[in-house]
Amino acid sequence: MGRTSTGKDRLVDAAHELIYTHGYGGVGVADICARAGVLKGSFYHFFASKQALALAVVDAYWCRQRDEWVQLLGDEKQPPLQRLRNLLAANVAAQVLDKCATGSVRGCLLGNLALELSGQDQPVQSRLDEVFVEQIRLVYGVLVAAVDVDAIRPEFATLATARAVLAQLEGLVLFAKLTNDPAVFDDLWPQTLRLLGVAADTTDASGPRRRASARPRRA
Amino acid sequence: MGRTSTGKDRLVDAAHELIYTHGYGGVGVADICARAGVLKGSFYHFFASKQALALAVVDAYWCRQRDEWVQLLGDEKQPPLQRLRNLLAANVAAQVLDKCATGSVRGCLLGNLALELSGQDQPVQSRLDEVFVEQIRLVYGVLVAAVDVDAIRPEFATLATARAVLAQLEGLVLFAKLTNDPAVFDDLWPQTLRLLGVAADTTDASGPRRRASARPRRA
Repeated sequence: MGRTSTGKDRLVDAAHELIYTHGYGGVGVADICARAGVLKGSFYHFFASKQALALAVVDAYWCRQRDEWVQLLGDEKQPPLQRLRNLLAANVAAQVLDKCATGSVRGCLLGNLALELSGQDQPVQSRLDEVFVEQIRLVYGVLVAAVDVDAIRPEFATLATARAVLAQLEGLVLFAKLTNDPAVFDDLWPQTLRLLGVAADTTDASGPRRRASARPRRA
Repeated sequence: MGRTSTGKDRLVDAAHELIYTHGYGGVGVADICARAGVLKGSFYHFFASKQALALAVVDAYWCRQRDEWVQLLGDEKQPPLQRLRNLLAANVAAQVLDKCATGSVRGCLLGNLALELSGQDQPVQSRLDEVFVEQIRLVYGVLVAAVDVDAIRPEFATLATARAVLAQLEGLVLFAKLTNDPAVFDDLWPQTLRLLGVAADTTDASGPRRRASARPRRA
């Protein structure tokens, strides 16, 4: 916003929207140029290939998303598990809003591309792998913070548990997309708490792991 | 095995293999015919469209898989949670074997198609939805059996929990495919136990939920 949209930006935005809706294989360079209002002859001035554009789409998308992830997971005014809950809620809200706007749960752009292109396109697969490693590390960071306030046990502050949390999200996104129904996310938070070894019925997510171990909280 | 392979069967087998490797959008009718050794002109004698063939691929695949799911989850010689563990282990073993054979973790054919075609192809999406509903119901059945032997608490024998178990599997399949590394499944069973409200360190999966509530087991 507030900047002049260049042909390159418009190509990235158009490719994002079309790939999100139709998948990478379902979209051609001509479709992307038409939506972006860029002449097909100019496409190769900006990008060497459709693959190069796909990499730019992933980078632009994750650049925005990472800011949100860092902000939500680093919000020290909130207890660590509440930050994780807010991150998951933001992801679910995005699916709900997108369905309102388009009529379809389109799922996770990165997850869609990961399943479609892994084994097919090494550069895109590698970039997606890097992005998911970053996501796992960000969630891992909040799990470590949760241990510090006794909200989860130390053995659950691992990269494997962080990946399990994101796997549960991506797996439910698959079911939400398949059924076109965001209601499948209704139990995501209690399911996530269980993955973290926290009994949902003994915590409000911001509270301590065991009532017996409750400490004075910040005001 | 033991039967004469027809052109129709060969088309289904070829389409399965090619779609599993390259995705639905990455494969054309000509590729499928070439692999099946069927003249392209004969294709439409067997199938009205590539979509019709995709439906046949899903049906043939799930027909075989369902037999395995029913057998493993219905094996009354095993305690219910051990049956579920065996099902998950069979799915993981299939990924490991496939990587040995092809060099790639190709993931879950049905999950791949669900993400690629949901919102794109209503008949295939509907058929996949039916298959996953069946999978969820089969897992739900074993959760009910687990309650009967006091292996999980009644509040966890729900369709939502059964879906969460499969979501964890599908989510980890995504990570295994992305990283081409089946090691991401290493913690699947303890993660599944936690989703079921069972502390992994107080059960061997075949044992009771709480040692204090142990009952005599079948010999």
